Amino acid sequence: MSVAEDAAPCIAVTMGDPRGIGPEVILKVLSGHDLASDASIVVVGAREVLEHEAHALGLDVDLPTGGSPASGAFSLLDMGNFPAERLTPRRPDASAGRASVEYIEHAVRMALDGNVDAVVTAPINKEAIAAAGSPFAGHTEMLAHLTGASRPVMLMVSEGLRVALVTTHMALRDVPNAVTGRKIMATTQIVADGMRRFFAVERPRIAVCGLNPHASDGGRFGDEEQRIIAPAVAKLQRTGLDVVGPVPSDTAFLKARQDAYDAVVALYHDQALIPVKMPGLGSVVNVTLGLRIIRTSVGHGTAYDIAGRGQADEASLVAAIRLAGRMANAARG
Amino acid sequence: MSVAEDAAPCIAVTMGDPRGIGPEVILKVLSGHDLASDASIVVVGAREVLEHEAHALGLDVDLPTGGSPASGAFSLLDMGNFPAERLTPRRPDASAGRASVEYIEHAVRMALDGNVDAVVTAPINKEAIAAAGSPFAGHTEMLAHLTGASRPVMLMVSEGLRVALVTTHMALRDVPNAVTGRKIMATTQIVADGMRRFFAVERPRIAVCGLNPHASDGGRFGDEEQRIIAPAVAKLQRTGLDVVGPVPSDTAFLKARQDAYDAVVALYHDQALIPVKMPGLGSVVNVTLGLRIIRTSVGHGTAYDIAGRGQADEASLVAAIRLAGRMANAARG
Repeated sequence: MSVAEDAAPCIAVTMGDPRGIGPEVILKVLSGHDLASDASIVVVGAREVLEHEAHALGLDVDLPTGGSPASGAFSLLDMGNFPAERLTPRRPDASAGRASVEYIEHAVRMALDGNVDAVVTAPINKEAIAAAGSPFAGHTEMLAHLTGASRPVMLMVSEGLRVALVTTHMALRDVPNAVTGRKIMATTQIVADGMRRFFAVERPRIAVCGLNPHASDGGRFGDEEQRIIAPAVAKLQRTGLDVVGPVPSDTAFLKARQDAYDAVVALYHDQALIPVKMPGLGSVVNVTLGLRIIRTSVGHGTAYDIAGRGQADEASLVAAIRLAGRMANAARG
Repeated sequence: MSVAEDAAPCIAVTMGDPRGIGPEVILKVLSGHDLASDASIVVVGAREVLEHEAHALGLDVDLPTGGSPASGAFSLLDMGNFPAERLTPRRPDASAGRASVEYIEHAVRMALDGNVDAVVTAPINKEAIAAAGSPFAGHTEMLAHLTGASRPVMLMVSEGLRVALVTTHMALRDVPNAVTGRKIMATTQIVADGMRRFFAVERPRIAVCGLNPHASDGGRFGDEEQRIIAPAVAKLQRTGLDVVGPVPSDTAFLKARQDAYDAVVALYHDQALIPVKMPGLGSVVNVTLGLRIIRTSVGHGTAYDIAGRGQADEASLVAAIRLAGRMANAARG
């Protein structure tokens, strides 16, 4: 680590798609929130874009150039890769997509080299990065490639809830066949490891959701619980992990919020995202486990429809930075 | 109606499975809550069971016999069909199942005859009623049969949320093919009618959920949104209903709780039940729309494991009675 062990963690924050709300929420965080006790921040982005947006929104932010801010301070690593005159129209654009990929590549390199303790990402746009020739479906796949990770795990964190996903962006029709014992076990093991290393939970209690209503109620509605989920949970238990399941998903999250579990393993996207988002979008943070670096992200997208209007809410970015800071501190021991 | 138009509605409360927590939560409601302004209550059950449970739990409840309580008061319609010595063991039993079916049949008859304004049901057990020869999967199917309804709709109500289900108890694997345009339309129309008649919402705003993550994100994950859901919503809109959809299910419930919609139509069990139960089980009420009578139910089951111990929480029954009272008042106009 480049930073002293007693200093706040140093976090690289990527600017995201220049045309989206990333620059705006970053400026709002830097101008309106005191994060000095949580982190030093290096924004990896384009000075021209940030200064244009700050001026347009009437925000007074002085961003010193450089990759190593003083403890608790912030600085800008200016990639100089996007001109302000290309900020409109606010829609997917190949050059904006390319710029947003470069911020990520640079921030990941800083984290792998030990120059920052964590990476926090502002939103990118899938169409824009595809137009720029990026082969990745999104951040998670790109981060896995850049860090050589074979199985990145999406962990959604909101008020009182940590929920990992066994499958992510696929049609609901394809979910039952995509949920395998091997994937449940690998996901749960990465979550257990993540809880210990980054969330200071020494002996994590983990619940694995059922797939069917009432976790199939003894086989009355579907057989995946008996055929796939229960055997995977039994194998995990035999490795010494504190895992229960399959737990009916309509009570698993409620119990987790009441602190019965440290994390829940959900089997498909909406099973995880419905409960995570219920307290409101402001507290939602997307964490990627299973990488060699600490990475958190805002829970929202580029929101082109409101970009540049001053309406974007920075709450999710504040939550993502604070969580990354806590994870980095936990990782130091 | 047998009751004066300005009196509190008269509600029949079925005792449910004698061996479950139904008798206990009913006694707790009658002894510990003042519902006089919400309803007069006729308990349809067995005196011997209620008196045994009251004694065992140290609850002082005086239940006058009769089917027509004074306004704001309560009485017992004693079916005399279950002896207290059969209360244990606390597990599914044919005679208990048969008794619980008889309470429902009698209460529905009272409602159809206009002797009560609504029926509230305590939990029954599926194995017990099956052992008693009942061909029905549960309350909903039985109530549909008894009232001659062709399409009962399950509406779950909790704090700030009303969620109807297009499909209910089936394997997740079978859901995509079971969600048809016809079912979405029929369910939504029954919900809209129910909002007007029983919830005093003159022009209900209804959201229909998507099936796939991000409502398929324009067809990237599944095609049911474009093929089935959007056309059904368009047809509903042409009938003059205020319906939107498909709305991604990970934000639909959040928006509904923020009052963007009066009700949400969910496509499968856990999509509906996860958000409904998140505020806690105490506020969850199960409403059946599409019957000729008003019917609400507790959100929990017989809970044999805690029956007779005094641990059961009556909050859901209180909520179910209050909601039935409000629905009956709204139906009077």
